[in-house]
Amino acid sequence: MSPPIQSPLRRQVAELLVVRASGHASDDQRRYPKWELSNAELKRLLAEGVGGVILLGGTSNEIRHRCKKLRQWAKAPLLLCADVEEGVGQRFEGGTWLVPPMALGRLYQEDQRRAANLAERYGRCTGHQARRCGLNWVLAPVCDVNNNPANPVINVRAWGEDTATVSSLACAFQQGLAAEGVLGCAKHFPGHGNTGMDSHLQLPVLDDNLRQLMELELVPFQAVMKAGIDSIMTAHLLMRNLDASSPATLSPAVLQDILRRQLKFEGLVVTDALVMRAITQSYNAGEAAVMAFAAGADLILMPENADDAIEALCEALQSGQIPMQRLHASQERRREALQKVGTSTAKLALKDSTSIDKPLERDEDRALARELVTASLKIHHPGPVTPTESGINLLRVDGVLPCSVLTATAPALVLPSEAGFQSLLYHPLGISPWQDDRDQPLALERLGIGPVMLQLFLRGNPFRGDQDRHEPWVATVKQLQQQKRLAGLVVYGSPYIWDELIEVLNIGIPAAYSPGQMPEAQRQVLTCLLQPAQVQSSAQTPLFQDFTD
Amino acid sequence: MSPPIQSPLRRQVAELLVVRASGHASDDQRRYPKWELSNAELKRLLAEGVGGVILLGGTSNEIRHRCKKLRQWAKAPLLLCADVEEGVGQRFEGGTWLVPPMALGRLYQEDQRRAANLAERYGRCTGHQARRCGLNWVLAPVCDVNNNPANPVINVRAWGEDTATVSSLACAFQQGLAAEGVLGCAKHFPGHGNTGMDSHLQLPVLDDNLRQLMELELVPFQAVMKAGIDSIMTAHLLMRNLDASSPATLSPAVLQDILRRQLKFEGLVVTDALVMRAITQSYNAGEAAVMAFAAGADLILMPENADDAIEALCEALQSGQIPMQRLHASQERRREALQKVGTSTAKLALKDSTSIDKPLERDEDRALARELVTASLKIHHPGPVTPTESGINLLRVDGVLPCSVLTATAPALVLPSEAGFQSLLYHPLGISPWQDDRDQPLALERLGIGPVMLQLFLRGNPFRGDQDRHEPWVATVKQLQQQKRLAGLVVYGSPYIWDELIEVLNIGIPAAYSPGQMPEAQRQVLTCLLQPAQVQSSAQTPLFQDFTD
Repeated sequence: MSPPIQSPLRRQVAELLVVRASGHASDDQRRYPKWELSNAELKRLLAEGVGGVILLGGTSNEIRHRCKKLRQWAKAPLLLCADVEEGVGQRFEGGTWLVPPMALGRLYQEDQRRAANLAERYGRCTGHQARRCGLNWVLAPVCDVNNNPANPVINVRAWGEDTATVSSLACAFQQGLAAEGVLGCAKHFPGHGNTGMDSHLQLPVLDDNLRQLMELELVPFQAVMKAGIDSIMTAHLLMRNLDASSPATLSPAVLQDILRRQLKFEGLVVTDALVMRAITQSYNAGEAAVMAFAAGADLILMPENADDAIEALCEALQSGQIPMQRLHASQERRREALQKVGTSTAKLALKDSTSIDKPLERDEDRALARELVTASLKIHHPGPVTPTESGINLLRVDGVLPCSVLTATAPALVLPSEAGFQSLLYHPLGISPWQDDRDQPLALERLGIGPVMLQLFLRGNPFRGDQDRHEPWVATVKQLQQQKRLAGLVVYGSPYIWDELIEVLNIGIPAAYSPGQMPEAQRQVLTCLLQPAQVQSSAQTPLFQDFTD
Repeated sequence: MSPPIQSPLRRQVAELLVVRASGHASDDQRRYPKWELSNAELKRLLAEGVGGVILLGGTSNEIRHRCKKLRQWAKAPLLLCADVEEGVGQRFEGGTWLVPPMALGRLYQEDQRRAANLAERYGRCTGHQARRCGLNWVLAPVCDVNNNPANPVINVRAWGEDTATVSSLACAFQQGLAAEGVLGCAKHFPGHGNTGMDSHLQLPVLDDNLRQLMELELVPFQAVMKAGIDSIMTAHLLMRNLDASSPATLSPAVLQDILRRQLKFEGLVVTDALVMRAITQSYNAGEAAVMAFAAGADLILMPENADDAIEALCEALQSGQIPMQRLHASQERRREALQKVGTSTAKLALKDSTSIDKPLERDEDRALARELVTASLKIHHPGPVTPTESGINLLRVDGVLPCSVLTATAPALVLPSEAGFQSLLYHPLGISPWQDDRDQPLALERLGIGPVMLQLFLRGNPFRGDQDRHEPWVATVKQLQQQKRLAGLVVYGSPYIWDELIEVLNIGIPAAYSPGQMPEAQRQVLTCLLQPAQVQSSAQTPLFQDFTD
């Protein structure tokens, strides 16, 4: 029998949930209304004891107010977290947006000390801004070793492609976070680096046995544990040789036997989002929550339905299917984590009324963002791209509603425009540039005449499967070269796609790569490739002459 | 000789300027950095006495904090205004976005009382939310009579196409504003309705003489003056038969002789933005400010350079070119206006700490927004559009960086998608759908196979010249009908384009029109045109399955 709504047990169980909310103040502003609770639901669940919220969307100013509001609704201490793996600016406008971790992984091969120093500052910057926003838990560092270039979900989010690099940089990042008094989270246990599938879309299957894991995937997790990581997030992967029936998130073999017993991890274990299809295709909200908790997770992240998850957990505890000690142990771990950050959060709350008006981004944050772009830039051939009256600046982005990397004043639009190129934006909702010809994939008559400058924003984002890799960019580069129409090439994002493209690139074609996609990366890349005189004049000239919507 | 930076004269003059700022907190978030002062510049100018700020961009939460901040920087009372002609939500996310005024102008022809009642509530809603945001001056109602369907800049922003309609509705709107304790502004004097040119791009020339103006354009201005309008904004038009040399904004014949003497307007006269090309193509910042002020303007809106404008005005006053009484008269008018709204603003400031957390949009605001859409919807043929496995939902929008009318959860994308249509977005930066054939303008092979549902977001926005009208939509409708591939047609925005299209539309093709472009308009239109069962299920299903960026 299910307990009454406000029973003490229900309240204790609710504490272990982390539900999803938009960073925006009003329900109508939600970008993912299917996944983000309404304010009425949030308010009720927090009043009933739900103990954590994961936030996405909104500006950094909004998020500050949002966190304050959530704390008011909750009354008890809350875990407030966000997926700010690449700086607060990755998710909340107004924060600093940093190049993806892989940029430092590559740098580490040349200069270990510099890379580790930058990773530590990366963690400090992220931690500082997260704390100022009201968050107390950063869902990073990613501790996966990206040893599969075709990995559609980890890719540049990883700190490197080998255990030593990932271990060293993830630890440096974690130290930066800790110095700023926010909790970190190592993910995705036992390692999501070697999958060719996206667990947002389906359940990847891996054949590694424990010995293989100990030699590779588990190394960075052990390193960050030693460095004092506060929490670990599980992966939605079927580790066939460890547990043939349940994905790692729901597997006692993975969470209890390996993580708790073998590796002796005493901190918080949190599931990855339970709304991901790798889970929902086989388990309902209650089943998934009970299995995860029974397997060893302390916190249940984004259950498909919070009430169902709470109810099922209550039943499992009352029936004895899960011993009550497990509940108390998880509560205790959560309390300890909150205590760790309590002091810094309390201090911040005191300063809140004065600091609220100070901009989130400090000069040192901006300097770090710039330095990271500079340190990871690859200029294959510096140009200059010849100015042209009728050139085409063909940009490829993941989407436009919204477009996270371009605004009307983005350097990737403005600088080529000043050099005489007309911008053309290709994205999944737009009219296709492709024709049905493997060797000549680009339908050139759709673009107009003149040389083409290609700017590809490609980084293998989650939810896209391997869609990006199916776009024939190698053949396109060849085709444009054959036609003598390739004026320049830039890749922002994936080093793997960049490597494939420079292999076929003719000598002398201006080309550059940046792991970062943000305006600062665009500015630095194009300052090299275009005429410096023109670039200087640009400052902040918008692409259009508009001054209003 | 120019006075020292902090001379009393300079301070008095600075009071008369209204400068432009972004609603966002940090400089990096500005959407129009060329036109929006940095925080350092703003802070300095406000400390030096600049007396007004016009705001654009940011969410309604941000704007609240922004207004507070600006008031702190200024120390003296400020005029804080915005172009929220169509509700606060038109400019600031989180506010209510209402259908354009022309919607009520059309309704007025059928039901005068209902239209006037709605216009009054339109003013209340806008005034209430503006005040809650911290604004005290709404730059509306537009009092232009849109008697030229090809008008590229007024169009649906006007309350009607004849003097009686515009007069009645503009007065009702103004009464609503006044009831909420914010200032209104009638624009664009002496009437911008009969131009075929956009003054953002060039200087339109009109041949009307005073008698003609008195019979038409000036009627609504006189009506709102009688209703107590607080301020009037000038137009950048060359009224050749009134002043052959200077545009109305800079013309003593228009501002002194007609507005002040003939019409006896005693309130504030404010220029339209002096950065518009109709002005900047002939005058620098100092010249434009001095001429406008000498001609009779009290407030100088968005000078190209605030310091130059202040300096030139100081010189003109010191040299006697402009008598000192003019300065004092303008200061006095500004003081009076501020006094009028002082009480309500002060009351609001007191309540600020409690009301800041209450959502801006009230239930009655949402109900008004819905009612306005319903009242102005035209269903030409209700459908249903036949569901199809391979149909194309071709959307035409003004731009995508950002797109003000579409998000990934917009009904215009989601509902057709649920009915089997694949969305295809056409916008100025995208790959063109056109081929060089007058009768068959659409390059059908670029779209894919299957029936096409056309959704045109077209309203004749400023800065676009007559670009929209050059897109061959009439020929496109004919072409799709000829091919038996037109599944449905929706126009959101211009009634003129809608009228042209239904003239060639075959009987039986589902089609509808809404003057509004917001999600609520999309929802109501598509609920009629698509299968109701499918529409019901949709609620807030996103177009994509993503739950993160």
